[in-house]
Amino acid sequence: MEQTDKNLLKTIAGISGFQVGRAFNLRKDGQGVERHSTPNVKINPKTDKPGIDIIVAAHAQKESVHIPVILTQSGIKDMVYNDFYIGEGADVEIIAGCGIHNDGCDASQHDGIHTFYIGKNAHVTYIEKHYGEGDGNGARILNPTTVVHMEKNSTCEMMMSQIKGVDSTIRKTQMDLAAGAKMVIHEKLMTHGKQEAHSDVEVELNGKGASLQIISRSVAKDESRQVFHPKAIGNNDCRAHVQCDSIIMDQARVSSIPEISANHVDAEIIHEAAIGKINSDQLIKLQTFGLSESEAEAVIIDGFLK
Amino acid sequence: MEQTDKNLLKTIAGISGFQVGRAFNLRKDGQGVERHSTPNVKINPKTDKPGIDIIVAAHAQKESVHIPVILTQSGIKDMVYNDFYIGEGADVEIIAGCGIHNDGCDASQHDGIHTFYIGKNAHVTYIEKHYGEGDGNGARILNPTTVVHMEKNSTCEMMMSQIKGVDSTIRKTQMDLAAGAKMVIHEKLMTHGKQEAHSDVEVELNGKGASLQIISRSVAKDESRQVFHPKAIGNNDCRAHVQCDSIIMDQARVSSIPEISANHVDAEIIHEAAIGKINSDQLIKLQTFGLSESEAEAVIIDGFLK
Repeated sequence: MEQTDKNLLKTIAGISGFQVGRAFNLRKDGQGVERHSTPNVKINPKTDKPGIDIIVAAHAQKESVHIPVILTQSGIKDMVYNDFYIGEGADVEIIAGCGIHNDGCDASQHDGIHTFYIGKNAHVTYIEKHYGEGDGNGARILNPTTVVHMEKNSTCEMMMSQIKGVDSTIRKTQMDLAAGAKMVIHEKLMTHGKQEAHSDVEVELNGKGASLQIISRSVAKDESRQVFHPKAIGNNDCRAHVQCDSIIMDQARVSSIPEISANHVDAEIIHEAAIGKINSDQLIKLQTFGLSESEAEAVIIDGFLK
Repeated sequence: MEQTDKNLLKTIAGISGFQVGRAFNLRKDGQGVERHSTPNVKINPKTDKPGIDIIVAAHAQKESVHIPVILTQSGIKDMVYNDFYIGEGADVEIIAGCGIHNDGCDASQHDGIHTFYIGKNAHVTYIEKHYGEGDGNGARILNPTTVVHMEKNSTCEMMMSQIKGVDSTIRKTQMDLAAGAKMVIHEKLMTHGKQEAHSDVEVELNGKGASLQIISRSVAKDESRQVFHPKAIGNNDCRAHVQCDSIIMDQARVSSIPEISANHVDAEIIHEAAIGKINSDQLIKLQTFGLSESEAEAVIIDGFLK
């Protein structure tokens, strides 16, 4: 494995190479390069289109699977369909993520369509990091689509972050929750330069006792532009709390367009959003400790996106 | 004046007849029926289309003007253009409002397009109540459009409420604020039966130090449907706070789609929205004081929309 590959894997998945003895799938430049299944986690390549099926056995416990994607060739346009079948009562951690290293002048693009079928009482932790780097002026483009179907009393926590270096992203997330299903989404996004990020999240709370929490935090620097459009729809006795906080810097622009809809008398839905610059008291305090203005800003942003 | 007219005027404008010696314009069933100007508040009928120009002299203080509209004929469709020119430094209270009494089976509709030109340092208080009544099955429809241009350091407080009995409403409000301009909007809305209410509010904060506060409260009963779409756009060093709270009852449905956009690093914009049913602790407490469930609900709703 080349050093560039290792660095990308480290950044997006916290690993430095193939995961021996663990469920693992590495996709590089539009091709599967390494794949292992385990007794409880089967990874099968799709036969009709690019992508894999990840099948987690019912009642399997403390399983984990890494499915990183890296792009290092300039000009690659990769589209992949990954389907996750999580058996009843299973407990699994899924580490996805995509890193693009683009030293060329052509755009590199990865569009991942992830569909989750989460069985009754199952628990899923999903971690997805997006990152771009490289000296070329070719764009780094990542368009993730995430679809989640949650069965009765299943729980899921999704940590989706765009660390840096992604020039353009259109994030689409769609979920439906059955009775007692619980979803927590942590979304973190940082844009700089002339980057553009759009995030649409739509969650239908269909079952009695379903609950949703979305915590979205973003930082927009330079001339970047961000648009958030989270939508929580309560169709039953349910709870939803959507919170979007954005720090705006330089000439950046941020729009937050949450939508909360209650179609049932027992639906309780709350939304909070705030956009503003870095708290100047915090900046001054850190500067009195000897930090420069830009160091102080970095500390505050790191804390905010932690 | 007929008793029906008097009752409508009482409900929408707190008056029981013509306002002698005060600036006043009464429109009934698509016709102006009474009009007075005062030295500082001129009311002129438009010559090119239905409606009036209301011109408040610069530096005039503690002025007030009543411009109620009533519809009592079934099947009337009335559209009116009212323009308000508020001179520099003037201070005026404007009491508008529309009441429909419809005993027939044809729809009665009033569409009022109000445009405000608020001069430097002027202060405007605007009160608008919408109300419908009558035994007929003809719909009562009110579609107000409110456009406000605020000059430097002007201030405006708008209290817009839909009390009850309005079958369908599409409320459109559009505002632009120059430096130091301050707008406070209180919106109150109650729907019942199969009523539908849409409210779009768009405010552009263009000048340094402009500020906006929107406090929207609504109650949706029976099978009624409400959609709120407030939009605050910060194009300069400015502050905006948008708050939407809705109580949902029975089979009603409520959607809240606020949009906050910061296009300037010093724009600080906050939004909060909540939709839920009546607090059951409050209900139980009032019932222990001897109120029936419906009486207790009425007390809570009155307090919420007060």
